[in-house]
Order: sequence, then structure tokens, then C-alpha cells
Amino acid sequence: MIKVGIIGGTGYTGVELLRLLANHPQVSLEIITSRSNAGTAVSELFPNLRGKVDLVFTEPSLDDYKRCDLVFFATPNTVAMHQVDELLQAGIRVIDLAADFRLKDLQEWQKWYGAEHVSPASVEQAVYGLPEMNREQIRQAQLVANPGCYVTAVTLALLPLLKHELIRPDSIIADCKSGVSGAGRNGGFATAMCEVSESVKAYAVSGHRHYPEIRQNLRYIHDSADLVFVPHLMPMIRGIHATVYCEALEAIDHIQQQVETFYSEEPFVDIMPAGSLPETRSVKGANDCRIAIHRIPDSNRIVVLSVIDNLVKGAAGQAVQNMNLMMSIPETEGLQGIGLVP
Amino acid sequence: MIKVGIIGGTGYTGVELLRLLANHPQVSLEIITSRSNAGTAVSELFPNLRGKVDLVFTEPSLDDYKRCDLVFFATPNTVAMHQVDELLQAGIRVIDLAADFRLKDLQEWQKWYGAEHVSPASVEQAVYGLPEMNREQIRQAQLVANPGCYVTAVTLALLPLLKHELIRPDSIIADCKSGVSGAGRNGGFATAMCEVSESVKAYAVSGHRHYPEIRQNLRYIHDSADLVFVPHLMPMIRGIHATVYCEALEAIDHIQQQVETFYSEEPFVDIMPAGSLPETRSVKGANDCRIAIHRIPDSNRIVVLSVIDNLVKGAAGQAVQNMNLMMSIPETEGLQGIGLVP
Amino acid sequence: MIKVGIIGGTGYTGVELLRLLANHPQVSLEIITSRSNAGTAVSELFPNLRGKVDLVFTEPSLDDYKRCDLVFFATPNTVAMHQVDELLQAGIRVIDLAADFRLKDLQEWQKWYGAEHVSPASVEQAVYGLPEMNREQIRQAQLVANPGCYVTAVTLALLPLLKHELIRPDSIIADCKSGVSGAGRNGGFATAMCEVSESVKAYAVSGHRHYPEIRQNLRYIHDSADLVFVPHLMPMIRGIHATVYCEALEAIDHIQQQVETFYSEEPFVDIMPAGSLPETRSVKGANDCRIAIHRIPDSNRIVVLSVIDNLVKGAAGQAVQNMNLMMSIPETEGLQGIGLVP
Amino acid sequence: MIKVGIIGGTGYTGVELLRLLANHPQVSLEIITSRSNAGTAVSELFPNLRGKVDLVFTEPSLDDYKRCDLVFFATPNTVAMHQVDELLQAGIRVIDLAADFRLKDLQEWQKWYGAEHVSPASVEQAVYGLPEMNREQIRQAQLVANPGCYVTAVTLALLPLLKHELIRPDSIIADCKSGVSGAGRNGGFATAMCEVSESVKAYAVSGHRHYPEIRQNLRYIHDSADLVFVPHLMPMIRGIHATVYCEALEAIDHIQQQVETFYSEEPFVDIMPAGSLPETRSVKGANDCRIAIHRIPDSNRIVVLSVIDNLVKGAAGQAVQNMNLMMSIPETEGLQGIGLVP
Repeated sequence: MIKVGIIGGTGYTGVELLRLLANHPQVSLEIITSRSNAGTAVSELFPNLRGKVDLVFTEPSLDDYKRCDLVFFATPNTVAMHQVDELLQAGIRVIDLAADFRLKDLQEWQKWYGAEHVSPASVEQAVYGLPEMNREQIRQAQLVANPGCYVTAVTLALLPLLKHELIRPDSIIADCKSGVSGAGRNGGFATAMCEVSESVKAYAVSGHRHYPEIRQNLRYIHDSADLVFVPHLMPMIRGIHATVYCEALEAIDHIQQQVETFYSEEPFVDIMPAGSLPETRSVKGANDCRIAIHRIPDSNRIVVLSVIDNLVKGAAGQAVQNMNLMMSIPETEGLQGIGLVP
Repeated sequence: MIKVGIIGGTGYTGVELLRLLANHPQVSLEIITSRSNAGTAVSELFPNLRGKVDLVFTEPSLDDYKRCDLVFFATPNTVAMHQVDELLQAGIRVIDLAADFRLKDLQEWQKWYGAEHVSPASVEQAVYGLPEMNREQIRQAQLVANPGCYVTAVTLALLPLLKHELIRPDSIIADCKSGVSGAGRNGGFATAMCEVSESVKAYAVSGHRHYPEIRQNLRYIHDSADLVFVPHLMPMIRGIHATVYCEALEAIDHIQQQVETFYSEEPFVDIMPAGSLPETRSVKGANDCRIAIHRIPDSNRIVVLSVIDNLVKGAAGQAVQNMNLMMSIPETEGLQGIGLVP
Repeated sequence: MIKVGIIGGTGYTGVELLRLLANHPQVSLEIITSRSNAGTAVSELFPNLRGKVDLVFTEPSLDDYKRCDLVFFATPNTVAMHQVDELLQAGIRVIDLAADFRLKDLQEWQKWYGAEHVSPASVEQAVYGLPEMNREQIRQAQLVANPGCYVTAVTLALLPLLKHELIRPDSIIADCKSGVSGAGRNGGFATAMCEVSESVKAYAVSGHRHYPEIRQNLRYIHDSADLVFVPHLMPMIRGIHATVYCEALEAIDHIQQQVETFYSEEPFVDIMPAGSLPETRSVKGANDCRIAIHRIPDSNRIVVLSVIDNLVKGAAGQAVQNMNLMMSIPETEGLQGIGLVP
Repeated sequence: MIKVGIIGGTGYTGVELLRLLANHPQVSLEIITSRSNAGTAVSELFPNLRGKVDLVFTEPSLDDYKRCDLVFFATPNTVAMHQVDELLQAGIRVIDLAADFRLKDLQEWQKWYGAEHVSPASVEQAVYGLPEMNREQIRQAQLVANPGCYVTAVTLALLPLLKHELIRPDSIIADCKSGVSGAGRNGGFATAMCEVSESVKAYAVSGHRHYPEIRQNLRYIHDSADLVFVPHLMPMIRGIHATVYCEALEAIDHIQQQVETFYSEEPFVDIMPAGSLPETRSVKGANDCRIAIHRIPDSNRIVVLSVIDNLVKGAAGQAVQNMNLMMSIPETEGLQGIGLVP
């Protein structure tokens, strides 16, 4: 049993981590902290956890963290960077579900997150936690930057296409659709049922923080990659659907086969048969990413459809997958949950 | 490992059974039948099961069933009664998720289900599968009648109150609210998103099939029990919320304490603290029933609020719980899933 | 053309008033005030009003109000009572959509609204604005207290039953279901899509502010009336469904006929044929109330089903109906909108 | 008063036509036909119309149609072409809400609709009913082909951009999102709440019938226009959101200004300020189309966001707008309804 703590677990990624870890056979949940809710039972805030998680939120304390082998930051952006150094020095492994260590270019990070970074060394040390791209480095990592939700859906859609030069790298448009939980538990008025239900809208068209993160991933795979990224808010709770348009350099059958081969050993990426139409509900509550590739008739364009649950493969599930890799636990342990349909 | 089959698994209780059984550590799924879908892969019909369930729907066949220790009927009403005898004679245990063996009074059954019953002996033999009421008989049963969804929510709300004579038995009004999945996968036009979303309505006010079943349960506990039962359709997929009004014969504190004691050893019934307001989402995808009791101010009336997931504790989850009891498997095995919040 | 102002029109009743008044052929919208949004165009806050309403929110000002024949308060509770006297003295008619003048018993009001009432005289003067109960007084009123949403649905369901002594007056249970917009535009976290969508819960079981208001109405009709009232939150935006249980003193056919006769001249109350099941969506966006009466089989109980749109007949639409009566405009003017189905 | 009939009015475009026409001050609804529902009151099928529309569905009959000045076909595709000739010969004006007369290229039509066209002459005669493109021809038309819903949203987004050569005509990608009502009232299982709620998916990626219709419009404006079109199903009832990507040939400010000028006199097209994010709910139930234009940073690409209500500006509302033009009624008559927010 490995001992695990969660820092700042009152948001939706926090409760999802708790849901996954509570049933993980090799994890002992030691501690969960929250300044604002210290003293409150976890199950009071999240009634689905009544009888499943007995923890009480406590004040953050390094001494408490030292009882843990690994600690998750489920805090807002710019919190983890202030605390990560002392945790790492204490020999505790760290996974940050926020964005503090995702962008290697500090200038870029500062531009998008509006803050000075206080721990450049940890950014350098951090491994970007997308197992399908970085599995071996994650196994050795002390600090993992867990990817953004849109980023996961789009990067997995494009990884083999760029790696095997199956598409033009600068022709990419990613039109993405997300459920409301992506905005977090403190989304406020903008995520009120009466404001977002029964409606669709684009947002952050002039620039979303996940854009530089996707671009960093794509360029890690192919130097000259670039994309247009427009996110949309969907009237549903969970799920991301990425519709990725690009220009093919190869025949569609060849592309389909290359992508199937590329992901054939991946436990959480499902390449569907040609012509399939993945639905976000097929991965609701599950750590799966389902992908289907289509050729647009009479055109050189292909469309890649990629769906994940933003709170699982797009956040807490991927974090558990990273934890499994870091702690030499079988990669799928605690993550076999099946999408809730209907 | 026990060997299990599902007859007629193309509905929502079927896919939910598959979701639960696919991850059950002591079950080997041997066979799933469907006349209309024979030859189709299960994962083609239910994409959430891709990579999780490899079965193909087959034609019903007694020889195939004989490879199983236990068989679930996930068929429409009046199907199981035609096949149950030969299965029982072959020594196969049977759980019927439909209503063929729920009502002991055949006259009553025939009135509500509009058919002649072809296997009265099996009705007599059948054990009503509500573990909180009949656990010991279920352990010994060859044939279990799995309860209706509304019936489970209302019976669990009232069981200790009637047993300990804490309420007037003839004063009960059960105002129940259900998600749309309760109407099944073949609900047709009446369950179209454009017809039921963003709207609420009562239905079957003049008589719902779950009424005689609830009444049978209540009278099993208390001779003179009776109730008014009005179901409502809610604009959501899963969940039942029963609001049960009755006249108290004891002080509310005493009632609360008696109910807590009554259910203290039950793994799937959660009596919440006085004043709590259970939400259906707290049990979404989970086998839990959460109950809270309120006294109406300046009145002798109490209100019992009881929530379940109609497809889990109200159908497939309860069926797995019954299977565990019948096969001497720990009762909670395969049922530790936690409600999906948000 | 009558000149109209709205005080505090940034909430959902405010935008709904604007939607109705913008197309009212005999109304000129003169002014809309909001301290927090002064200077902002109405259409910036509510994009559905772009090109329909040209007003800009302004600071409250008595001089501005004096240009109006009638002013609506769409403010939170306890605001209108501070300003109503000077408006009335200036000869301006007033309709309060909040609760400041609804309860005649000041003690009771102070208990439920947690404040000292500063204008007892205006409470005495105020006419309770349910046209089906008080039409003639409303025509003469200077100050109208616009009813609560639940109150409207329940009172209309019971008005003829109590008046004609068709039911036992103390046997009433009102199980009510409301969409989320009833909680207002500042519902905060409790009305976030991720918190209330795909879930149902009861709330305020120990006492809701609409309870004393309903009771006041019922006792106005019948001295010894009393009720149990439990509200529930539904995963939808608009609509109230009241399910009202009571004990009949007459045969159901007689009751049906009496109720039909009672409401035969009412433009906004639709008594549906026996056996009907009203849906909230049938009145979405409309000022209609649809009612159906059912007898529970083998019981002396009847169930009255009553649906309204909480923002229209339950708030802004009823306010416009009251304005029409007060200003001698045909009662249905500006209110012929038809429920949006689907 | 002009006399109007509806052929086949039992679908969602039918009930929406009824909702709009029932309150149209210059229309007398004479007749509505339905083979399958003949004899049924309209208000029985659509309870929102109780007390608003007194018609009963009747069998189709040319003699009845002859009492009308204008007839709407709200029938499935391939019905109108069989009956249109005799109506036109009888001097009745016709608006077809289906697709029988939309495509000028009969070969193309036959390929997409899988049928032989039986009235090529009427196709030639038909005017394509997009007022913003064809207003003067519509005024003179005997037969109008009412545009498809996606087609309306995308064409209005691109009309000034192509006309004024502000974009590269062959660079267009239209990623479109639609509510479920677009699939019609007979959508069957595929539109069941449990199948489409809380989920998003693309569909018809390999070819949707609206593709050739959009392309025909674009080429009508600019010879060499072409596009990629991928529709997606959204978990909501009404609304289309078109996200249209294209390469700009001019500066964004110039484009914004040109588009504003182009639509400045249009009563139903609202060009929002630069940076706006139109929401589909802002036009729910209204005949408006709202459009906003964005430049993607560090790119030559622009994104045009265009929202309509698929049942109003995308179907019945546009049909009424066409009727107004054909019958010399003010264009906005009966169409001033404001989007229902919240």
C-alpha cells in the first residue's frame, strides 16, 4: 500500500480523485487538505462519498505530507509552485493537476498565467504526464505535470499523425466541445444551470490557456506543427469532444492502420473502426479515450474525432495513471471503471 | 469463478448488468442472448463496453444456459415465466429482473400484467429479492424475483417504520420522481429528448404496476398498510427520489434512532443525519440507497426522503447483490462503485 | 401608452418582465434601474434583448420614477418596503414581485423574512395580486403584492375545491417540483449546472417562505384550511409542477364539473379533461396554468396536478396581468405568448 | 387576413408553424392535414396549443386547399413534389419546409435524397427562400423552397464575406452543433433522452444532405467556393451554433465593418460587436440570427460564430418571413418574439 495525500481537494478534480483512490486496491488515502474547509468531513461536502471516505479536511502541513509517498495538488493554478520544492526535498513524489509545471517556456507560462513563476527549477525537472507520449520518463519522475483536459484529447488525436508524418503539420484546426465541469467547482455565475443549460457557445476564441500547451506537445512531436484551437461550452456535465481537421499526406486506409498500430498496446486509447462516431458518454466516468478517423469526401482533409471524460482521462484518472507508473503499480490498477451508459 | 448468463441483455438493465459483471472479480460472463441482435458484438451496441466485454449476442439456447451456474432474465415482462421451469430443472439458478415472479397473488398479477401466468408453481417458489427484507431466504433461493425500482425506494423508506409501528400504516402517500431510463431502452417517442427534457409530468396516476408490488411489501411487514402512489417523470437519465408522507406515532428523535439502528448493519442503506436532503446524484451509478427523515413543523406528519439509482439498486445492482447472496460471495463484491459526482 | 419603470431589473424576473413588456402594445418602457449595473446597456446583460430593448440601466431616482404611471419592483425581498411610500405618495402605481407585501400578518412576515417591516401601512393597503381570487380589488389597487410562484400553482389548484367545500380543508399535501430559475439569478453555487443537473432533491422541508403565503390564501378561502408543503428542485430551467393530494367530499365527476365551471371565464387557467397529465413544458414561456384532477382508485383521495411557468404566471406574466387590470388594459394584452414546445 | 393551410403538420416544424401563425395578426389558419392523425384535435397532440388553436387534423384534400391563399408543406422530404403542381395550378402559393425544391441540380438532388424527382419544372420555378439573399425574387414567388437549418446558419455567416471577397473561397470549414429537435419528431431511438442527453457526438461526417445545399448557396455567391461541413449533435432541444473557419484576405476591422454594413438593414440578422460570443439561447424561440467575427491571434484565419434557433430562423420562422414577403405583409409581422432567457 502506498500512502497518498491530496492538497486542496474541494474541487471537481478533488472529488474525482477521491472517487478513484477510495477504490484503488494499493492506495491508502492519508490526508486531504483544504484551508477553507478544514474540520469538515469529506463526505459532508461530497455526499456520494458517505461511507466510502472517512477523511476530514485538514489544514495544510508539511509534517502531515511527510507521511505520504506521493501527494496530488488539486489546487488552483499558481498554488503548487510555492510548495513543491519542500515536498520534493522531503522525498515526496508530486503530481500537479493544475498548470504550474506544464509549460517548459517560462516566458510563455508567465504570459498565459499572469504570474511570475517562483520555482523555475521544478519546471525543468517536471515530466509532462501524458503516458502515451512520456511513459518511461514518468516512471522515473519525482514531479509530474498532469496535462490539461482539452490538451489530452487533442494531443492523443494527433500524436501518431504527426509522428509518422501522415498530415501537414501546420494545417490543424481543433474545434473542441467541453462539458461544464471543465470550468471547475468555482465557476460561479457563468456555470449556473440557467445560464449554460439548453445553450451552446464558443469561448476564449482569442486565446485559451490550453493553446500553448497543445502547441508545445505538437512541436515536441513535430517541429513545425501549429494549430487553431476554439473551445465551446456544452450543456452537459462531463465530457470533451475534439473535432480535429487536418490535411492528409497519405491514404486514409494507411492512416487508419498506422494509428491502430501506434496505439495497439495502449490500455486507455481505443481506435475505433473507420466510420465510427465516438460519443462522449461512452467514456463517462472512465479513463478511456476513444478516437475515430474520417476522410472528408472529395477533399484531402481528414477529421479526427477524439472523446474523453474531462475529469478522468482529462484530469484525475490520468493523474492516477501517472501515480501507478511512478509507484510501479500496474498501470490500469484502480482505473478499470466502465463508462456509465445510459 | 461462477459462470453467469444474461437472457435478453439489449435493454438498459442489460447494459448495466454487463457494466457491473464485467468488473466483478468472481464472475465469468459466459453468454448473453438476444434474438433480434444475435451475431452482433455487445460492444457494437454499447460502445462503453468496447475492450471490456468481448461477448457476442447469441440466440437463446438451453444447452448454452447449462454451462452457467446462474442466469439473469433482463427480458420484458411475461418472457421469463415461459422459460424458467426448464432452467430450474436443469439446476440453474435464476434471477428475473422483470416482474414475472414478484406478485404472489396471481389474480392481481394477471390484472396488472394483462396475461395468464404460465408458471404458478415458480411464483410460489420465487423469493422476493430485497435483501434488507429477505436476506436469509435469498441465500437459499433457486429463483429470485428482483424488485421494481420505485418499489425498492419506497419499501426501504418504510420498512423500519412499519415494522416498529412508528407510523400509522394507512396514512402513506408516496410521491415518486424517476429519471427517464426507468422507461427502458424501448420507451419510444414518449422518452424522446424533445418530449421529456426541460419538463416534468405525473403519469399513471390512475394505477402503476409498482403499486400492487409496494402494497404487497408493506402488508408483508404490516397487515393493514396501504398507500397512495403517484409517479412522475423527471428530465434526467438516472435516479429515483421517493418523497413519502406519513403520520408519526412516535417522536421524531425516537424514529430517527430506530431507523438508524434497523439499518446499522446494511451495506447499501445509508441513513443520513436528521435534516439531510439526499440528492439522487449522490447514488448515480452506485448500489446505495440514501434515506433522510424529516418532521413537518406543527404537524404530526413526517416525510421520508429516499434516493436510489433506478438502474443499480433499483435493478441491475440489486440483482448482483442477490446473486452474491445466492452464490455465497461476499455481498458487496462488485458493488463498491461510488456515485458519480458531479 | 402607459409609462412603466422597473426597479432592480437584473434578475430573472427582471429579464422576463422586459421580454413581455418589450412587445406589449400599450406599454412604453421608460426606465430600468440597477445600482450595480448602472451605465450598462440592458442588451449587454441579456443578449436576447439586443435590438428589442434599447434602455440602459440607471441609478434609482425618484424623479425618474415620476415619469412613470406604474413601477415594478423586481428587487430582492425587503427592498421595496423602503421605497414604496414615496412612490405611492407621488401617485405612481406599484407592483412588487418580491414578498414585502404578501403576508398580512406582520409577525408572520417578520418571522419568515428575518427583518422588521418598515411600512406596515402599505402592507395593509396592498392587494394580493392573484387575479383569479382578487380581480376586482386589483383593478382599484395602488399597490399590488405579486404572488410567489409555488403559491400561484397551489392556490389555483385548490381555490374552487375549498370554496365549494369539495375537499376536507385540513387534509392537503402539496408536493411541488420547481425548475432552477426559481432560485433566481444569484442562486450561486447551489444552482450550478454541475450541482443540480441530472439530479433531484427536496429542500426547505422544515419550512419554506411560500408555506405561510399558501396557507394565508387557503384560509382566505376556507377558515380551517391547512397543508403540508414540500418543494423539490428539478434539473430544468423553467416550470413548476404541483401535485396536490387531498380527501374528496364529493364524487370526482361532480368535482371536475364544479372546477370547470369555476374557471370557465378565466383567460389563463385551463382545466384539462379528466385523466389528463399536464406537462410543465406546455406552459413554457406562457402565462397559462393547466390543471388536471384525478381520483386515486379505491381511495377517497384526489390528486390535483397544476403546472405553470414559474417566471411567467409565477412571476413576470402575472405582474403584467395585474398591470393590465390596474391600468384598464384588456387583461390578456401582451400575454398571448404560447408555450414553447418542444 | 390571408388564408393559410399546413400540410402534414404533426412534426416539430408543424407545431412551431402553428405557434407562430396562431398569433400572426394577418393570418387566418384554415386547415391542417395529417393522414395519420385525421380527426384528432391539434391541441390534443400539442397541449401548448390548448385554447390557442381550435383546428382538427383533416385528410389532405385539394378542395380544402383551394380555400387557402398559401399552403405550407411541413411534410417529410419527397412528399411535396407529388402535390405541388396541382396546388400551383390552382393559384395557391406554396412554401415547402422540406428539401424537395432546394437543389437546382436534379442529379445532385437525386443522389442525396435517393429518389427520382417527379416535378423538375417546379424545381426550376422555385425560389430559394433565404430573404437575405433572395428577397426580391421571394416577393414574386409562387413556390418557395425554405432553406435547411444548418444551411441558414452557415450561409448567413459567409454571405458578405464571399460577396465582398473578404476570405479565400475554398478555405472554409464549418463545424456545426445542433440541438436534437433538428432530427424531427420521428427521430426514434436515436433521439431518446437516454441516448443523447449528457453526450456529444459528430454524425454524418461522410456526407450530410445540407452539404450540397450550403455549397450551392456559396457558389451562387462565389464561383469557386467550397467547404468542409461536419455536424454534431448537442444535448439540448433547440439551437444551432455554426463555427466557421476561413482564411481572411482583409484586416479584421475592415471585415467587421463590411459585414455590419451588409446586414445593417436586415431585421433578423444581428452582427454583434467584435469579440462577442453568441449563445444559442439568445435566439431560443426567436427568428434572429446572431453573428460574431473573431480573428485567430498570430494567424490569417478568422472564425465566424453564427447562432439560430433551428425551428425558427432555421425552419418555421423563416417560412413565415417568406410568407410575409410573398403576401406583401410587413416582413417582421408575427416574428417579433424574443429569445427565451433563461
